[in-house]
Amino acid sequence: MLITELVLHPIAISDPPLRSSYGLHAPFALRTIVELKTDSGLTGISETYGGDGPLAGLEAVRQRVTGMDPFQLAGLSRDLTAEAAHEMETTPAGGRTQTYLVPGENPLDRYARTFAAIEIACLDLIGKAVGKPVCDVIGGRVRDRVSFSAYLFYKHGVFSGPEDEYGEVLDPRSCVRECRQMIARYGFREIKLKGGVLDPDVEILTLRVLRDTFGPAYPLRIDPNCAWSIETSVRVGRELKDELSNGGYLEDPCATLEGMAEVRRRLLAENNSTPQASNVAVTYFADVPRAQALDAVQIVLSDPHYWGGMRNVQYLSHLTSVLGMGLSMHSNSHLGVSLMAMTHVAAACSNLTYACDTHYPWQTAEDEIVQGGRIPFVNGCVQILNRPGLGVDLDYDQLARGRERYARIPYRKRDDEAEMRQHVDPAWKRVLPRW
Amino acid sequence: MLITELVLHPIAISDPPLRSSYGLHAPFALRTIVELKTDSGLTGISETYGGDGPLAGLEAVRQRVTGMDPFQLAGLSRDLTAEAAHEMETTPAGGRTQTYLVPGENPLDRYARTFAAIEIACLDLIGKAVGKPVCDVIGGRVRDRVSFSAYLFYKHGVFSGPEDEYGEVLDPRSCVRECRQMIARYGFREIKLKGGVLDPDVEILTLRVLRDTFGPAYPLRIDPNCAWSIETSVRVGRELKDELSNGGYLEDPCATLEGMAEVRRRLLAENNSTPQASNVAVTYFADVPRAQALDAVQIVLSDPHYWGGMRNVQYLSHLTSVLGMGLSMHSNSHLGVSLMAMTHVAAACSNLTYACDTHYPWQTAEDEIVQGGRIPFVNGCVQILNRPGLGVDLDYDQLARGRERYARIPYRKRDDEAEMRQHVDPAWKRVLPRW
Repeated sequence: MLITELVLHPIAISDPPLRSSYGLHAPFALRTIVELKTDSGLTGISETYGGDGPLAGLEAVRQRVTGMDPFQLAGLSRDLTAEAAHEMETTPAGGRTQTYLVPGENPLDRYARTFAAIEIACLDLIGKAVGKPVCDVIGGRVRDRVSFSAYLFYKHGVFSGPEDEYGEVLDPRSCVRECRQMIARYGFREIKLKGGVLDPDVEILTLRVLRDTFGPAYPLRIDPNCAWSIETSVRVGRELKDELSNGGYLEDPCATLEGMAEVRRRLLAENNSTPQASNVAVTYFADVPRAQALDAVQIVLSDPHYWGGMRNVQYLSHLTSVLGMGLSMHSNSHLGVSLMAMTHVAAACSNLTYACDTHYPWQTAEDEIVQGGRIPFVNGCVQILNRPGLGVDLDYDQLARGRERYARIPYRKRDDEAEMRQHVDPAWKRVLPRW
Repeated sequence: MLITELVLHPIAISDPPLRSSYGLHAPFALRTIVELKTDSGLTGISETYGGDGPLAGLEAVRQRVTGMDPFQLAGLSRDLTAEAAHEMETTPAGGRTQTYLVPGENPLDRYARTFAAIEIACLDLIGKAVGKPVCDVIGGRVRDRVSFSAYLFYKHGVFSGPEDEYGEVLDPRSCVRECRQMIARYGFREIKLKGGVLDPDVEILTLRVLRDTFGPAYPLRIDPNCAWSIETSVRVGRELKDELSNGGYLEDPCATLEGMAEVRRRLLAENNSTPQASNVAVTYFADVPRAQALDAVQIVLSDPHYWGGMRNVQYLSHLTSVLGMGLSMHSNSHLGVSLMAMTHVAAACSNLTYACDTHYPWQTAEDEIVQGGRIPFVNGCVQILNRPGLGVDLDYDQLARGRERYARIPYRKRDDEAEMRQHVDPAWKRVLPRW
């Protein structure tokens, strides 16, 4: 079985006006659907970041991938890792941070993202050729269902067109409503709030009412994407000591490993062992031992899309286990192909210690590009089905619809700051720390 | 495809009177050949340590393995890892060291050894089912041929029966002869001397004449298995500074990570950066970051047999790469099935930075249990053949011969000290440090 063709489908999907410390989600999220066709007649699929940058990265490996044996992934990985290493060496240390970059837009992990998109489609191919789910192709599942968290956002009402199911959420009470709706529909058992949007006191209050409403059986995490100073991070950690303990965490409260290490030291001195998670200060393997040595981060957020694929997430699971750290999973706006890739790799990671994040509730059936429509959640979990590969096939009509929409809109990269200036605050600029 | 039967073949193979700091090899090495039969008609094979201990470990998982899907290895790994972790917790720290144990006899890694024997046979099965070499089943090869080193031993002439091809080797001159013979026959391009046997000055001289004879194009490594004090280790490192640089290393010169860290510090202070390798002070994943933090070990010796299988060796390759360490491979007396498992995993490890060790030259065609006889070496390398699985099949007549021999002899565990007392020195006792 050799790859005969790489087909790239740039698509656009509706996205609600979600807020974060970056700014505002645009009305469309961009994704790329990858197809690898083979001389065996089988086609492997994957889903990755969208827009010009990711497309260019994938175009750059078209020749390398065409004719490749999908089983021989390590050679492609080595080649792209070498290019990435070269770029890291020639980039000033200051240019390596993704603190100010929305996920998927960091030029330094583009090789890892490109490889991941190819790898996941190859693993889907192998699974189909072998008649096995991808989780079993990469070593075997340690669980049959993967738990996800309710990913709450503060958000605006839709600026034009019909309102979405969650409406405006800009205070604690509406956030509880949002959470109720999401849990009623998906059955999630852990809750994540995207913070760094409202005054920290309002966000603290939001977590308190969430705890009051849902109780300690629903662990809570908050992620302000580095919007807080060390001082504010310590204060929030102190005030939310009870809410963030027992299965919760504080995610990227402030910028840099050194900042998070300082927060940790000060909280520990108060006998507060709230763990900290990161997907901003820890994005490469080299960051992990440093994060552990500084005790800055106790939980690493994996993601097959930008950590360089599913096997790399397994490596990360193993590495964090060796270093005594926990593992959770980061998410971006995505459809069902990505959801299944996340589910398969999560099923095959023995050190996964938290429910994974997913933006899936923020997308709709109208945009789903897998046959049969939206992937079902039961009790907050996605089930590994006994189907070969990722277990989903493309709905080509829906895919064509996504391509048409992509062709029609002007967006070619994610820019939450520009969107914020257009719709909410003409003077918006991301400032770190904001509080 | 489900496993229907686990078949264990305990065998004995001839072994020459090789010396090490443990003592003397017995005239027979013990191995276990594992067959996993399936309802698909395919059979997967592997080779592991022999004797009562390894057999009991494998017997203990017979029920767990029967009926198992060979793709679903992670569940078995998790179960055995949990048992091992429990045993580690309940064993005093002093009991965890294998400084005094010959490889394969450490009770604490018996779970990893048991899992490895099952995993390798499962990967052979998967490769056969899929029509792919094992190296491609586990992620793809980064090389098509794997380089091995000439593994030189000081040795006695055979105590009874016909002399072997190398005769007695107990001084530098005969060691050079042994090396010439081995390189002429196998084409090796790196040289390892098992040290800790003669006075360190004689071993230093041996390495010097090896360097004089073969030149710097043949990197040299010496492994006294912890027989030296810190003082002696520093002295040997100092005297062999040129011989062990440029691709060579000092392997386990003295006991414990702390001892090796001290040797490292003192050599570095003399501007001598000879790297140190270990398979005695570093045998579990938890040892690796500690070894790196202490700068005690710069090169970890992998081995699919006791590190818990081929995927674990890939994890080790990744971990050492993240920590900036090198990777080589340890060996024990073995036949062709183990050689091919070592070759396949080595082919799929991007961070393998040295030629692997192998005892294969010390075994003979008379004992080989793979069809077609001995695996060929070309320029010191074993080639990955385009055959499914490990690429070798069992010769059942030869296997029966090995089983008969096993049944006939009294040996049921490796005990180099007892052997040494019987044949060389009735008062022999392993003393660390000896020099």
